Amino acid sequence: MANNKKMVEAITSRDEDFAKWYTDIVKKAELVDYSGVKGCMVIRPYGYAIWENIQADLDRRFKETGHENVYMPMFIPESLLQKEKDHVEGFAPECAWVTVGGQEKLQERLCVRPTSETLFCEHYKKIINTYRDLPKLYNQWCSVVRWEKTTRPFLRTSEFLWQEGHTMHETEEEAREETLRMLHVYSDFYKETLAIPAVIGRKTEKEKFAGAEETYTIEPMMHNGVALQGGTSHYFGDGFAKSFGITYTGKDNKLHYPHQTSWGVSTRMIGALIMVHSDDDGLVLPPKISPIQVALIPVAQHKEGVLEKAEELRKALAEKFRVKLDSSDHAPGWKFAEYEMKGVPVRVEIGPKDIEKNQCVVVRRDTREKAFVSIDELVPFVENLMATIHNDMYDRALKNTQEKTFTATTFDEFVDTAKNKPGFIKAMWCGDTACEEKIKEVTGGVKSRCIPFNEEHLSDVCVCCGKPAKHMVFWGKQY
Amino acid sequence: MANNKKMVEAITSRDEDFAKWYTDIVKKAELVDYSGVKGCMVIRPYGYAIWENIQADLDRRFKETGHENVYMPMFIPESLLQKEKDHVEGFAPECAWVTVGGQEKLQERLCVRPTSETLFCEHYKKIINTYRDLPKLYNQWCSVVRWEKTTRPFLRTSEFLWQEGHTMHETEEEAREETLRMLHVYSDFYKETLAIPAVIGRKTEKEKFAGAEETYTIEPMMHNGVALQGGTSHYFGDGFAKSFGITYTGKDNKLHYPHQTSWGVSTRMIGALIMVHSDDDGLVLPPKISPIQVALIPVAQHKEGVLEKAEELRKALAEKFRVKLDSSDHAPGWKFAEYEMKGVPVRVEIGPKDIEKNQCVVVRRDTREKAFVSIDELVPFVENLMATIHNDMYDRALKNTQEKTFTATTFDEFVDTAKNKPGFIKAMWCGDTACEEKIKEVTGGVKSRCIPFNEEHLSDVCVCCGKPAKHMVFWGKQY
Repeated sequence: MANNKKMVEAITSRDEDFAKWYTDIVKKAELVDYSGVKGCMVIRPYGYAIWENIQADLDRRFKETGHENVYMPMFIPESLLQKEKDHVEGFAPECAWVTVGGQEKLQERLCVRPTSETLFCEHYKKIINTYRDLPKLYNQWCSVVRWEKTTRPFLRTSEFLWQEGHTMHETEEEAREETLRMLHVYSDFYKETLAIPAVIGRKTEKEKFAGAEETYTIEPMMHNGVALQGGTSHYFGDGFAKSFGITYTGKDNKLHYPHQTSWGVSTRMIGALIMVHSDDDGLVLPPKISPIQVALIPVAQHKEGVLEKAEELRKALAEKFRVKLDSSDHAPGWKFAEYEMKGVPVRVEIGPKDIEKNQCVVVRRDTREKAFVSIDELVPFVENLMATIHNDMYDRALKNTQEKTFTATTFDEFVDTAKNKPGFIKAMWCGDTACEEKIKEVTGGVKSRCIPFNEEHLSDVCVCCGKPAKHMVFWGKQY
Repeated sequence: MANNKKMVEAITSRDEDFAKWYTDIVKKAELVDYSGVKGCMVIRPYGYAIWENIQADLDRRFKETGHENVYMPMFIPESLLQKEKDHVEGFAPECAWVTVGGQEKLQERLCVRPTSETLFCEHYKKIINTYRDLPKLYNQWCSVVRWEKTTRPFLRTSEFLWQEGHTMHETEEEAREETLRMLHVYSDFYKETLAIPAVIGRKTEKEKFAGAEETYTIEPMMHNGVALQGGTSHYFGDGFAKSFGITYTGKDNKLHYPHQTSWGVSTRMIGALIMVHSDDDGLVLPPKISPIQVALIPVAQHKEGVLEKAEELRKALAEKFRVKLDSSDHAPGWKFAEYEMKGVPVRVEIGPKDIEKNQCVVVRRDTREKAFVSIDELVPFVENLMATIHNDMYDRALKNTQEKTFTATTFDEFVDTAKNKPGFIKAMWCGDTACEEKIKEVTGGVKSRCIPFNEEHLSDVCVCCGKPAKHMVFWGKQY
């Protein structure tokens, strides 16, 4: 490999400077480019192809659970945004405002949607009349804008792409079920498609979404021990319904307020893919969302029969995988480095000597393991290998998460761990926001990630104040 | 049918009031809802499902012709928009401007993209260096905003969904080829997927896109004889490249400006689907983009064996088609009317008497023809029927276009036809904008649609001024 690396400009080492390593990958794998608009990114073809694969997989999961896609306006009149008090307080400070349209000053300014609860509520008010109209299970794929001071590609940008599900239900029980169902759709997707393990649970009062009764979250850990809020699912109760006057006639012939949820994931997930799996040679992509699954590289391609054989292999592989046969005039070593940088899970090399032996060389991107495989066995071999790569990537990420998850039962231990051991800390908590604030201040940014569904009993008292503990909480720094 | 119609509120007759008929369908087929934001629409699940089918089909065609999807910021800084003079003059008057972000007044205001030529050029300037970087064949699916005074769902809205292709090429010849290739991708799509015939050709100087050297257009005729600009493809030459300073080192080792194209179609196409094919009972959708292709209606569904048989048919049909088995407690007649309103191409009815005879009833939405079909033959029968429906829909639309296409060789004849016969007028033209302006004024809105690729020689002189004719032009009113 040493030879190949010399041919491409090296990227910063992950252990040396994690932040610079991240932006190097983003740039050199050609995922994004910076734009002239503050905090907005250009998502380049390779980055967008990852997003399209993510979208297709999630969209199938949403449709299988009965959801329908819709499209709402991108603008929210200021008066509409203000209808739910907590919600507007949470979002107004980071809104972009349109004040001029078609050369005239607008009578009412319009916010570029930071999220669309208010627009969905306005629409639901018109189309929900009786229990027969429920549930409404809508989803929207779109871009949203939140004015950010400091930005980083995929992780925090003023504009980003996402999906937002917004549903309405007859009863609290149904809405709560939906909230958890979608959280589990997300965690299944993280595990089965992104090969990323995550802690899931409920956000504390302090960390929940503006306007929600409860927020559930999926929190994968990045390679450096920092958390990324990977997706959230909110139960709203009937708060928005009351603010917007949405009612339905129930089976009992009386008027009721419906119960609401919303849930979303975004292009941040591409940031998670980088920070969980990738290494000093570039991206490492899980097979299911990699735009190219097999890079097929002819060796000594000018020799008779090599390109013909390569094309034969391409055809056979293309029936099962997204294959790219690269017969450009770059040297094989340059190509090896290029597809390593792009995180392509499997490389297949075929040259004159391989053809003589009716074999080819198969190299995994994640471990660099190399195998000589009979051409007759190539397709089933690669098929098995893809499953193995996915599972191994998941297991390595899980191991990293477990190794960087610590326990603290005293405040000193907590602070010491927070300072010296990047990762999650499990600790008991009394339920008071004051303790969260103190922990954040003393540790320089550690926040509650979530109250997991399976709480452990680590001690009887809050790690911060010593009062009786109510919950076990995962704590950690975040992107 | 008479009975069914009574059960749903009737829509306005198409012949009586075309505009009201249109908005009735949009509303009752649940395609869109009006929003609280001026000129912006809510695209409801059924309308959005049509758009998803359109997107999937077009996206496949774009990828087959070598294009890649990307995502650009939704904001354009004012200084960037101003870089190409003709372009900014065309778009600035209808821009929505963001002037406040995150509670602070912006130093430079940002336009919400009305189209993205300028953003693509800014990016291309960074990534195009040598002839090896060309061509760049990018496409973007997104929403754009053009501040409109009077709006109508799908046809003219302040925000709409579209795709915009933006490509860069080494030579003028290649760029011109691309411009025409994409025009033909559009016209193939209109014919093969939407079952809509169209006149295609080049726009006159007056009607071309702001900043383009040439604009090509696809112009389908609506049932009432009015044209809809159904899609455009532009050749830009190197005008933007010069304004933005985009150069590449050619094979000759010298600096050159690349040649550029852009092309787009939008949710307007859903408006065309309605206005070309639909009737007084609602939507009529071509099979390829209909969200439901077969509506399966059990008759006397409480009787033993009916629902079981219906489910058996659903399974068999679902292997080839998007089927909906409606076993809700509405009466069959209500269901017939409902799926007629939604334009579902084929209805299959199955009841106890049919089961006895091992048959079912198959009804076409477009012609109302009914057939009794053996259950064993159902799937291949429906498969053939779908092809027949598509072709018949196309042929009827073509017949309508032909019947409403007239010829004029004198100005009086032209004005008389424009006033009394809605449709296209073929007439000779000298090439002067002044004649286009006069024609528009005298006829109350007739404009040149395009100069078709196959011009006929109708006379030697311009129908307006009598000077020597340069071209035959299709003229007509437009949405």
